[in-house]
Amino acid sequence: MYLVTDRGLSLGRDLEEVVLQAVQGGVTLVQLREKEIDTRAFIALGKRLKAALAGTGVPLLINDRVDVALAIDADGVHIGQSDMPYEIARRLLGPDKIIGLSVETMDEVVEANALDVDYVAVSPVFATNTKTDTLTPFGYEGLRRACSLTRHPICGIGGMNAETVGEAIACGADGVAVVSAIVSAPDPMTASKNLKTIIDNELDKKRLG
Amino acid sequence: MYLVTDRGLSLGRDLEEVVLQAVQGGVTLVQLREKEIDTRAFIALGKRLKAALAGTGVPLLINDRVDVALAIDADGVHIGQSDMPYEIARRLLGPDKIIGLSVETMDEVVEANALDVDYVAVSPVFATNTKTDTLTPFGYEGLRRACSLTRHPICGIGGMNAETVGEAIACGADGVAVVSAIVSAPDPMTASKNLKTIIDNELDKKRLG
Repeated sequence: MYLVTDRGLSLGRDLEEVVLQAVQGGVTLVQLREKEIDTRAFIALGKRLKAALAGTGVPLLINDRVDVALAIDADGVHIGQSDMPYEIARRLLGPDKIIGLSVETMDEVVEANALDVDYVAVSPVFATNTKTDTLTPFGYEGLRRACSLTRHPICGIGGMNAETVGEAIACGADGVAVVSAIVSAPDPMTASKNLKTIIDNELDKKRLG
Repeated sequence: MYLVTDRGLSLGRDLEEVVLQAVQGGVTLVQLREKEIDTRAFIALGKRLKAALAGTGVPLLINDRVDVALAIDADGVHIGQSDMPYEIARRLLGPDKIIGLSVETMDEVVEANALDVDYVAVSPVFATNTKTDTLTPFGYEGLRRACSLTRHPICGIGGMNAETVGEAIACGADGVAVVSAIVSAPDPMTASKNLKTIIDNELDKKRLG
């Protein structure tokens, strides 16, 4: 269960507070996503979040900005198709950092098989208000096909909430990335726990065949 | 004579074309400044500009984005007070890259003496439409004072054109950074040549005392 931050959707609450509650609720990976902030503020925020996550065992990824990731020695980056090309990001970050890649079409799912990315994020599974510059949603059917085509760990993002995360896992996803269903929840910890229970139940079903 | 690019002010002309004409006219340092572009496009543009400048001996700096500078192995970066802190940029870029810093107040001029930046840019000397998020302009008097306070090579930026570059050099600046007086000129090469002549005349006067 992968949390992608969105301060604008966090009901004015402190970023670290929301993230730590989500981690207590079962989030296992965090991506700091900031699109409107200047570089210095992004670095300062990343440092604070890294400090907050220290000791939790939950890795922190930075959206898009390899410079910010390097500056704070984050655990990696998540890049989209308009961000730094994967090969360059890998060269700058080295072999040990996590690099995740958004795939927005079935062609991109297949192209990503040529790259040593650590995971792919099928984006979006469903249209949302969180991210509006997206292509046609994959839907469950597209997610299922993407899962069958990729050689990488794969998660779904976009419209992932208590109604959808179970089916996304049932489609073959290894995980789900959640934004508003956690950061906009009145109680991010409880929301995370509920989502985690659904996800774990589906993963158990898959394991048991 | 330092050229800071602005594609929006370049009358629709190709970036490399404008820059190469400016270099033919005497520009000795180029900064690629892009504020609205995504990372992948910024890298692609930087690569093209670096290729265009190859063999000219004119270094290419990247505004703000250390990741882009690293991705294309640019000659350095220009950072402002809201960009990556100098010490981190130096660590990521190494000792041999050029790092220039904008200083927007007299306090920042003095603070920069504690840093091993390669130059400081007094910003703005005069208010312009090119960059609107600036503080109180230094004016010639402020520029003169900044020149007396800094231990670094220093240039003026903001409102630098044929009317002002001579006086800026007379104030003690080692150079001037120009945007619209070159990129918006009908003939960037001729405009650069004219500016260069004025600058060189003033530098000669200073040398001769």
